[in-house]
Amino acid sequence: MDAIELKYNDAGLIPAIVQDVNTNAVLMMGWMNAESLRLTQESGEAVFFSRSRKQLWHKGATSGNTQKVIELRVDCDGDTLLLRVDPAGPACHTGEYSCFFRTID
Amino acid sequence: MDAIELKYNDAGLIPAIVQDVNTNAVLMMGWMNAESLRLTQESGEAVFFSRSRKQLWHKGATSGNTQKVIELRVDCDGDTLLLRVDPAGPACHTGEYSCFFRTID
Repeated sequence: MDAIELKYNDAGLIPAIVQDVNTNAVLMMGWMNAESLRLTQESGEAVFFSRSRKQLWHKGATSGNTQKVIELRVDCDGDTLLLRVDPAGPACHTGEYSCFFRTID
Repeated sequence: MDAIELKYNDAGLIPAIVQDVNTNAVLMMGWMNAESLRLTQESGEAVFFSRSRKQLWHKGATSGNTQKVIELRVDCDGDTLLLRVDPAGPACHTGEYSCFFRTID
């Protein structure tokens, strides 16, 4: 983290794209605050901040579908994260492998 | 678009993850308003809304590094887009192939 300054938005959050390292599929997008990022780095599993519930959200804590973080990347302007993960199960609450299961024409 | 209702944020924007269809690499994240999404669908090339310049931004209009949109996906709760594109060149203004060229330890 040292040299890379992250830019959080006005709500103190930064978007985190989640990609499966095994397939390179994009699984979901979550949001993180500084605390959830710290917990992610400490635990090695994805921890987000739930904007609807306004609380930390250890992905898979109840479902078992945790996401082991293999690599953490940041974009050129420091305002978006990319988590490359090894998922223990489906990313989506619907049971779908990826949240992006719908196509727009 | 018919059946899928998109959720824009308070600023009228929705995040759009851009993925290379050829490699499945995540290239960048942009933001779209309804107008940029409409122009993207009409033109078949990625058009974003620049939050810093507060104007529509046809990716590659000046650099030539356009992004041909092959597939447009939306996530389960309709608040994030995934553009699967065929890029004409590097996605990043630094000249890097992907904006996510930095790793965080």
